[in-house]
Amino acid sequence: MRAIVLDKPGSFRVAQVPDPVPGPGQIVVRVDACGICGTDLHIMDGEFPPTPYPITPGHEFAGTVAAVAGDVRMDLPVGARVAVDPSLYCGYCRRCRSGRDNLCENWAAIGDTVDGAFAEYVAVPAANAHRLPDGFDGQLAAMIEPLACAVHGLRRLGPIFGDSVVLTGAGTMGLLLLQLLVHAGAGPVTVVDRVDGRLAVARKLGAAQTASGLGDLDGERFEVAVDATGVPSVVDGVAALLDRGGRLLIFGVTPAEATMSLSPFRVYNDEITVTGSMAILRSFAPAVELIGSGVIDPRPLLSEPLPLEEFGEALHRVRTGQGIKWHIRP
Amino acid sequence: MRAIVLDKPGSFRVAQVPDPVPGPGQIVVRVDACGICGTDLHIMDGEFPPTPYPITPGHEFAGTVAAVAGDVRMDLPVGARVAVDPSLYCGYCRRCRSGRDNLCENWAAIGDTVDGAFAEYVAVPAANAHRLPDGFDGQLAAMIEPLACAVHGLRRLGPIFGDSVVLTGAGTMGLLLLQLLVHAGAGPVTVVDRVDGRLAVARKLGAAQTASGLGDLDGERFEVAVDATGVPSVVDGVAALLDRGGRLLIFGVTPAEATMSLSPFRVYNDEITVTGSMAILRSFAPAVELIGSGVIDPRPLLSEPLPLEEFGEALHRVRTGQGIKWHIRP
Amino acid sequence: MRAIVLDKPGSFRVAQVPDPVPGPGQIVVRVDACGICGTDLHIMDGEFPPTPYPITPGHEFAGTVAAVAGDVRMDLPVGARVAVDPSLYCGYCRRCRSGRDNLCENWAAIGDTVDGAFAEYVAVPAANAHRLPDGFDGQLAAMIEPLACAVHGLRRLGPIFGDSVVLTGAGTMGLLLLQLLVHAGAGPVTVVDRVDGRLAVARKLGAAQTASGLGDLDGERFEVAVDATGVPSVVDGVAALLDRGGRLLIFGVTPAEATMSLSPFRVYNDEITVTGSMAILRSFAPAVELIGSGVIDPRPLLSEPLPLEEFGEALHRVRTGQGIKWHIRP
Amino acid sequence: MRAIVLDKPGSFRVAQVPDPVPGPGQIVVRVDACGICGTDLHIMDGEFPPTPYPITPGHEFAGTVAAVAGDVRMDLPVGARVAVDPSLYCGYCRRCRSGRDNLCENWAAIGDTVDGAFAEYVAVPAANAHRLPDGFDGQLAAMIEPLACAVHGLRRLGPIFGDSVVLTGAGTMGLLLLQLLVHAGAGPVTVVDRVDGRLAVARKLGAAQTASGLGDLDGERFEVAVDATGVPSVVDGVAALLDRGGRLLIFGVTPAEATMSLSPFRVYNDEITVTGSMAILRSFAPAVELIGSGVIDPRPLLSEPLPLEEFGEALHRVRTGQGIKWHIRP
Ligand SMILES: NC(=O)c1ccc[n+]([C@@H]2O[C@H](COP(=O)([O-])OP(=O)(O)OC[C@H]3O[C@@H](n4cnc5c(N)ncnc54)[C@H](OP(=O)(O)O)[C@@H]3O)[C@@H](O)[C@H]2O)c1
Ligand SMILES: NC(=O)c1ccc[n+]([C@@H]2O[C@H](COP(=O)([O-])OP(=O)(O)OC[C@H]3O[C@@H](n4cnc5c(N)ncnc54)[C@H](OP(=O)(O)O)[C@@H]3O)[C@@H](O)[C@H]2O)c1
Ligand SMILES: NC(=O)c1ccc[n+]([C@@H]2O[C@H](COP(=O)([O-])OP(=O)(O)OC[C@H]3O[C@@H](n4cnc5c(N)ncnc54)[C@H](OP(=O)(O)O)[C@@H]3O)[C@@H](O)[C@H]2O)c1
Ligand SMILES: NC(=O)c1ccc[n+]([C@@H]2O[C@H](COP(=O)([O-])OP(=O)(O)OC[C@H]3O[C@@H](n4cnc5c(N)ncnc54)[C@H](OP(=O)(O)O)[C@@H]3O)[C@@H](O)[C@H]2O)c1
Ligand SMILES: [Zn+2]
Ligand SMILES: [Zn+2]
Ligand SMILES: [Zn+2]
Ligand SMILES: [Zn+2]
Repeated sequence: MRAIVLDKPGSFRVAQVPDPVPGPGQIVVRVDACGICGTDLHIMDGEFPPTPYPITPGHEFAGTVAAVAGDVRMDLPVGARVAVDPSLYCGYCRRCRSGRDNLCENWAAIGDTVDGAFAEYVAVPAANAHRLPDGFDGQLAAMIEPLACAVHGLRRLGPIFGDSVVLTGAGTMGLLLLQLLVHAGAGPVTVVDRVDGRLAVARKLGAAQTASGLGDLDGERFEVAVDATGVPSVVDGVAALLDRGGRLLIFGVTPAEATMSLSPFRVYNDEITVTGSMAILRSFAPAVELIGSGVIDPRPLLSEPLPLEEFGEALHRVRTGQGIKWHIRP
Repeated sequence: MRAIVLDKPGSFRVAQVPDPVPGPGQIVVRVDACGICGTDLHIMDGEFPPTPYPITPGHEFAGTVAAVAGDVRMDLPVGARVAVDPSLYCGYCRRCRSGRDNLCENWAAIGDTVDGAFAEYVAVPAANAHRLPDGFDGQLAAMIEPLACAVHGLRRLGPIFGDSVVLTGAGTMGLLLLQLLVHAGAGPVTVVDRVDGRLAVARKLGAAQTASGLGDLDGERFEVAVDATGVPSVVDGVAALLDRGGRLLIFGVTPAEATMSLSPFRVYNDEITVTGSMAILRSFAPAVELIGSGVIDPRPLLSEPLPLEEFGEALHRVRTGQGIKWHIRP
Repeated sequence: MRAIVLDKPGSFRVAQVPDPVPGPGQIVVRVDACGICGTDLHIMDGEFPPTPYPITPGHEFAGTVAAVAGDVRMDLPVGARVAVDPSLYCGYCRRCRSGRDNLCENWAAIGDTVDGAFAEYVAVPAANAHRLPDGFDGQLAAMIEPLACAVHGLRRLGPIFGDSVVLTGAGTMGLLLLQLLVHAGAGPVTVVDRVDGRLAVARKLGAAQTASGLGDLDGERFEVAVDATGVPSVVDGVAALLDRGGRLLIFGVTPAEATMSLSPFRVYNDEITVTGSMAILRSFAPAVELIGSGVIDPRPLLSEPLPLEEFGEALHRVRTGQGIKWHIRP
Repeated sequence: MRAIVLDKPGSFRVAQVPDPVPGPGQIVVRVDACGICGTDLHIMDGEFPPTPYPITPGHEFAGTVAAVAGDVRMDLPVGARVAVDPSLYCGYCRRCRSGRDNLCENWAAIGDTVDGAFAEYVAVPAANAHRLPDGFDGQLAAMIEPLACAVHGLRRLGPIFGDSVVLTGAGTMGLLLLQLLVHAGAGPVTVVDRVDGRLAVARKLGAAQTASGLGDLDGERFEVAVDATGVPSVVDGVAALLDRGGRLLIFGVTPAEATMSLSPFRVYNDEITVTGSMAILRSFAPAVELIGSGVIDPRPLLSEPLPLEEFGEALHRVRTGQGIKWHIRP
């Protein structure tokens, strides 16, 4: 089959490699679409430490069951459509045993530590596959993975019914979080981004107000803040806008060495809460339903998928901020 | 009656003032004991901004009902023993209406914004009085108020069953928090303080391990951290000891201008939570029970109460770190 | 002024009574609209035990500030529009002190235990008044009170994100609960009622499926069930439709002597939860926002208000199931 | 090896069977002690429907690692002491994917649906094994499984800090629940059982009050009730003792066909909650710590273990209510 192979950080090739066969408990999926996200760029650039090179990246994907190991008991016949949760965890470390699999001490993931879906076929544990109705659009299905991250983020935040919210970053994740916030009953949501086109999408998706910088919100206070930029100065800035009793969710991935400054007096006196959200935790199934039922509609975020051969061009478009979300259709 | 009066920051006098009379909905309490806490020092020093001078401070107190307004319907006969929740809130601001009275936008408190209990008598709303069994020790009863703050802190933290905890500061509040943590089912609690005598009390009250500085804990990680020093560098240091998924409660009151440094990457990647706890919120009644039943025993923290006339001496002992908790018996 | 007066159960008259004057902490509200609910029927029929006769009922109301006591510090000028939370509680009983004011041992309410709003004017504690924007429609504003009950119900239920729901009863409360469920992110909501017209409204308001009886749902299982009929056999029937891990909210008010049958084996084995919701608890302010922002739109439930003189006719229409919600405009 | 074999309901034999070998991902455990519980009696009597005969029962056990499959990566060397969580679940059904593995639609368990630990050796998935310190007492370790059920029960109940509790049934599970309730900060716990000796143990373990029947508690009301008898009339009786706002946990396993009677009016008006707890859900690791640290001490419940050959005698003692908890030491 054809697959993207990264032999080492910095370069990739479209290679001819052996077709995968299903190991015990596995299925093989014919990839229909696989999204490109920030982590893929980091893997390309050698900035995602757990990566073992050579590797085929790609973790936001959906497709069709092509082969099934003999010991799989799930109802996953060849030809069934599936979205795949890329999370792999050990099940026996202290974090796994307390139900926080996403913080597993032996963390792994399809497309990050084992071969992923920028390829015609990928072998995955059957238990990671979520069956979709026949005819489910492949590119929509590939959006389930990022939505599952956003659903977990919302759970980490806790109830937001009626709360005023400021959300920074109207990229893929920001716009998914926005839809979830609106759908979960938030009060007015203010979205901040520096790209006008993205703010226009945000207004269409339910933002009560948009701004092109935190400075434009002078004087306003919010009960909830969510960062989806990953820019440290934005995290600092939005934390400052919290009202007494306010909560900040750090969803964006900032550089590891950056720091934010927090007033411990204010944390005490105003009972401010700062918390974070990392990847997926039992949030893949709800994401399947939210996209399946049309409650969350990722279509305003999508561009026409590109073939495997244009992987380089797709990376370029992501890096230069063209469009919002790009997919490869191998 | 005799009362401490602060005419302006920096000085006080033991004055003869008119006996208070109960206004509508009020009772007058004959003060049995009133504790001295950090806020009292700040009021003395002019560093507690909401204070209106002249004022009689004192908010950690208990006593005996001496007079009751005609419209009071609670079962509070003259002679009944009571502990008094000093919290006053408006009931109609946005915070009050969302159930967070302690963050009231029109916040006030007995002993902080209206005359308190370093006096023979004090007038208080009957609804703030919690009736105690006859014969309840007055000094123990005066410990209900600080315990109520600690109970609220524990609630802010959420479930801690089986979690490993590091607690910095073994003063009054730290030692009450320690007892609560142990009683609420925490895993092993490590207590850090620089005063050896306090660490000895901590071990007696259930600490699994004690240390005289965070440096001594090199390499250990904790699922929960609680600061009860109010020292910014300690808050910073203890935050660094959190394990993945960890939670930090900022209970100590740091200087308003201090900042702590937090890695937003770590908040995201390790799903760290930082939160704070301010005063009392529906935690006075549980504190009454905890001390009444003997589950929490503040006696190892107490010194012999001093009379009103030795208020200056008592302040001196607090400032010089003698004993742990000091009370005035007016 | 003119007011409805019930001298004793079973009869009422439109009477001329003295205008109310504001007591300490009170305002007087010129009533704009007051809804009729089941409790009013019970008060009429002598079946609401706490009622002291004679009484002027009416607790779902909004209006305009007409007079303000001198000691009121809230921003409530004469002419301001307000909706009024009818809940009165003591603030010092065990339930109040644990934050469950709605279960107050000394429970009281405007229109239930003291004179209410089927009258031109009504005196109420200022703290119970929630200010509305000028020009807020009076009949819409009178819907805030029932919505506040529904918001509390949803909170009692806990998170419902993505859960399949069956809701019995598409009267006023059922249709408000439906809108809240949809707005809070429930999965598909199935509504059951025996009145076709109400089911049509339910579909318009977001029901994924409707049925005219539980029997029509043969074989389906739901993760959440909410009863808003108050009919014991319906409560029993809907409890039987819960999936493993399911939760039932009993919102409807059944006769006091009725019983439902529950299998304790199933409660254990399937971890079923049954819980209830009573009136309003810190849910009035969110209800103000939900109706003010148009997120919840009660207009499909409303009929043209009737004047005080047609109170009898209005009661008749409620009893005979005409329309959905009826208001008096005094 | 020697093992108990049930060829069909109603009879068992001590048989010589082949030693188990570890399948993929498995270890073999040399059984040190295995407790007898109610489910074992049901399996004996043919009253536990999922049982496939012939079977070797036994699910409350601990022992020593005797063999390890080549693909196991956990730190579980031969000779290590382990307690084993008997839960087996599919990981892909709707319940598993929402984090409620204990309600798995493809539920299975060691000793219930596959061969268990009334045998010299048992093969189990390595991920189910929890490593214990060397020298951990085997019979104490076999108590981790029932404690893990009790920990899950407490979590289902939610916060109980300071609440008054009534607990019915002072058998193994009741006495473990009692210790947990006390350790988690409950207010006074009243224990009801008809066996005096068990009430004496309850008092020793922290019960504030004991009674030999619910009738003896006339007039008292409780904020929390926990049933650990499994007797329907007791469940009914204890539900009646709940105060307003009260919560009932049904932990005992009643006959499948029994019903309890509940007033839906009371559930609404008093906001009563009824819920259940089934087996273990991420509560095994905390149970390891609670017994390891000595916080929970099951020793007052234990009798001297009997050898495999006296399995019949052990069953007899359980059925006739001798002692509290019996173990087989194969
Ligand atoms: N927590 C998780 O589980 C999780 C999962 C997936 C992704 N993430 C993280 O979430 C973040 C967002 O992901 P994404 O895919 O949505 O990325 P994205 O498409 O790059 O979106 C980020 C948005 O933030 C905007 N932005 C950057 N700096 C800004 C500033 N100073 N003021 C206002 N807006 C600013 C960007 O505008 P420009 O394009 O002009 O820079 C862009 O529109 C990333 O950090 C990603 O790593 C987290
Ligand atoms: N959140 C609330 O509702 C609330 C309520 C009451 C009080 N508080 C705050 O809680 C904090 C504790 O109150 P408290 O009454 O217990 O005060 P305290 O008696 O002064 O106790 C503080 C303890 O921390 C120790 N400490 C100071 N710096 C340290 C360091 N670098 N390393 C280790 N230990 C150190 C102190 O030792 P030394 O004596 O040697 O300095 C002292 O033993 C204060 O900040 C107070 O304002 C908060
Ligand atoms: N928990 C609280 O705080 C709270 C607050 C307010 C009200 N409530 C209670 O909530 C319930 C609903 O109030 P509401 O104002 O919405 O009353 P409503 O307008 O009378 O609505 C009840 C609906 O249930 C339907 N219904 C009755 N029996 C049925 C059956 N066997 N199958 C299907 N549908 C059936 C009724 O149809 P018909 O008209 O044909 O009977 C009606 O449409 C009442 O019990 C009320 O007392 C509770
Ligand atoms: N939820 C779960 O995950 C889970 C896990 C394990 C066990 N269980 C269940 O929990 C229950 C308790 O288990 P166990 O092992 O502790 O059983 P147990 O040792 O038989 O204890 C039950 C106790 O309840 C007492 N009792 C029975 N009827 C009573 C009555 N009318 N009034 C007062 N006390 C009465 C019994 O006394 P007598 O001996 O005189 O009858 C006995 O002391 C069982 O139903 C069991 O199946 C549930
Ligand atoms: Zn793990
Ligand atoms: Zn307020
Ligand atoms: Zn009350
Ligand atoms: Zn399952």
